[in-house]
Amino acid sequence: MPEIRQNMATKEWVIIATERAKRPEDFVSSDQELTEDRAEWSENCPFCPGNEEPAPAEIMRVPLEGDWLLRVVKNKYPALNQQGERVRSYDGVHRWMSGVGYHEVIIESRRHNSCPALEKPEEVARTFKAFQDRALAMSQDNRIEYIIPFKNHGKSAGSSLVHPHAQIVGLPMVPRYARGRTESAMQFFDDMGVCVYCHMLKDELTTGDRIVAENDHFAAFVLYAAFSPFHIWVLPKQHISSFLFASNYQLEALADILRTILRKFYYGLGDPAYNYVIRTAPTRDFGTDYSHWYVSIVARVTKTAGFELGSGMFINTALPEENAAFLRSIEA
Amino acid sequence: MPEIRQNMATKEWVIIATERAKRPEDFVSSDQELTEDRAEWSENCPFCPGNEEPAPAEIMRVPLEGDWLLRVVKNKYPALNQQGERVRSYDGVHRWMSGVGYHEVIIESRRHNSCPALEKPEEVARTFKAFQDRALAMSQDNRIEYIIPFKNHGKSAGSSLVHPHAQIVGLPMVPRYARGRTESAMQFFDDMGVCVYCHMLKDELTTGDRIVAENDHFAAFVLYAAFSPFHIWVLPKQHISSFLFASNYQLEALADILRTILRKFYYGLGDPAYNYVIRTAPTRDFGTDYSHWYVSIVARVTKTAGFELGSGMFINTALPEENAAFLRSIEA
Repeated sequence: MPEIRQNMATKEWVIIATERAKRPEDFVSSDQELTEDRAEWSENCPFCPGNEEPAPAEIMRVPLEGDWLLRVVKNKYPALNQQGERVRSYDGVHRWMSGVGYHEVIIESRRHNSCPALEKPEEVARTFKAFQDRALAMSQDNRIEYIIPFKNHGKSAGSSLVHPHAQIVGLPMVPRYARGRTESAMQFFDDMGVCVYCHMLKDELTTGDRIVAENDHFAAFVLYAAFSPFHIWVLPKQHISSFLFASNYQLEALADILRTILRKFYYGLGDPAYNYVIRTAPTRDFGTDYSHWYVSIVARVTKTAGFELGSGMFINTALPEENAAFLRSIEA
Repeated sequence: MPEIRQNMATKEWVIIATERAKRPEDFVSSDQELTEDRAEWSENCPFCPGNEEPAPAEIMRVPLEGDWLLRVVKNKYPALNQQGERVRSYDGVHRWMSGVGYHEVIIESRRHNSCPALEKPEEVARTFKAFQDRALAMSQDNRIEYIIPFKNHGKSAGSSLVHPHAQIVGLPMVPRYARGRTESAMQFFDDMGVCVYCHMLKDELTTGDRIVAENDHFAAFVLYAAFSPFHIWVLPKQHISSFLFASNYQLEALADILRTILRKFYYGLGDPAYNYVIRTAPTRDFGTDYSHWYVSIVARVTKTAGFELGSGMFINTALPEENAAFLRSIEA
C-alpha cells in the first residue's frame, strides 16, 4: 500500500510509492561527464579568469586585492530591474507591481571545472558569506521584501552556464508560497507553543532514520514527506527566523554540512543536477517565534515532473528512509 | 521594466520579463516528429486495438458492443491502491494516511497517431464524458475527497506512452494547493460578495486582449499572471463549483473549445508537449458560492523550470497579451 505523508511545516501531502519505489542505486547516473572532467579554464566562459571584461558590472570581489577567489556580478539578463520606483497598482481587478529588485550572480570559484562538492570547506563558506553580505545590503533597500539565495547545478536543474555560480534575488513582494509557509508555521505555534521547525528537527534527531549529516550547528535530513528522491532540508539547531542573522560560525558550519551532502551526491549518485535554496523570513521579520530559516536541496534525478505539474500532487518514487541510509553510507 | 503580476484567484505573483520577452514564434518547435507522422498502429503499444490483453483490467468501454472507441483501464503502475481502508494516523509529529484511491487511464482513441487536436469534436467530448462518469463513480466512494482529471501530451510533459490517453486520480485527501485556492476564493467572496472566477471571467471578456477562444458555455484566455508561455484557463460561464455537475451540453462545448486551443497549439506551435488538468471542488462540495471549476492548460515550450523550482518564484519569458493575439491568429 502506498503511503500519503504530510510535511508538518508546509501541510503539503505527498504520495510515497512504497511498493514500486526505486532503490537509491537506481538513481545513480553513470553516463554523464563529471564536473571535474571539464577543462579548468574555458576561453568562452564569461566567468573564467581573464574573461571578466564581457561580464556585467561587478558588485563585490573577494579578496579586494590580487587574484579574486569569488566575485558577485549583476545578472546579464536580470529578471528584475535594480533602478526604479516600487509602484503598485490595483484597478479593481488586477494587482500589478513594477519589476524592481535585485538579480545577482555569485561566481564561486576561479576554476571552470569545480563545484561545491570539489571545493574546500572554507571555499564553500565564501559563497554563504557572500549570500549574507548581499542579502544584508538588499535588506537595507526599502523596496525589497523578500530575498532568495539559491544555486542550480547542472543543465537539468536549469543552469545554463557550467562555471560554478550561485544566484541571489531580491523581490519587492513576498511570494504566495512563502506566505503559505509562514501561515502554517504561525498556526502551529499558536496551537502548540513551539516552532514547527524546531519540533520537526527534534523528532528527526530522536528517530535518526532520515538523518543524512549533522554537526554542532545543523542537522540535515531527507524529508519525511519528500517531494522527490533525495529531497533534503538542512535546519539550523538554533531557532533564528532569518538567514541574515546567522553568525560567521554558523555560516562556516553550514558550508561544512552542505559540502558533505553535495559530496555524497557527487560520489554516491554520479554528480547529479540539483537545486538548493535558502528559505528565510521576509526582510522586515526581525525574529518571530514561528519562523525558522533553512536550506532545501532537491536532487534532479527523476526525469520529469509531468504528473506533478499536471495534477498538483507529488508522487515520490523513492523511500525517504532508504534514501537517507544510502546517503549516510557514502563516505564524503 | 519587468512587471510583477498577481493572479487574483490564487494570489500567486509572477515576474513577466517584458523587456527580454520572447516572441510567440520563438516557441515554435520545428524539428520534432508530429503526432500524425507516427504509424496508425503499433505492435508494442498496450493501448492499440488487438493488444488489449496485456493491459490492466478494463473499467469501462464505449460503445459496449463492437469495436471500442474509448476505454478506461486501471493504471498498470497505480500511484494509489483501490483496495483497502482509509486509515489516518498522527503520532504527535507526523501525519500519515494509507495510500488508497483511484488511478485510471482513459485510452482516448483507437488510433496510435492521434491526439485531441486531430480528433473530431465528438471524439474529444468522449474523454470529458468518461472523466465525468468516472469522477461521479469515485465520488460515491466515501474514502475519496478530491478528484483530478488530467492529460499529459508529449514526453516533456511527462507522458511515457505516445498512444493518446488521459488519466484520472481519486485522492483520499485534499492537496494543500487546492486548499489554498479555496481559501483565497472564499476570502474574495467574503470581501466582495462575488465569485473571484466569475469576476475574472467578466473582466477578461470585457478587455478581450487575452482571450483565445470563446463559445456559448466557455471562454479561454491566457492568464494575466501566466506562469509560463501559453498558460491558459478555460472557464465555464455558468458558476458551478464542480465539474461533476457539468451538463452534457457543457461537456460538448468544453470539448469543442479545448480542441480549438489544442489545434492552435498543434498548428501554431508545432505540436508542443502540454498538460491540462481539470481543477474542481472537493467531492463533497455541492455548490458553494466561491468555488468555480475550470481547466488549466500549460504548454511545455520552455526547457526547464530551474529558477522556479530553485527559487519558488515564476518568471515568464513571454507576454500573455502577445501569446493570446498569436493564438487568436492561428486558424484552427
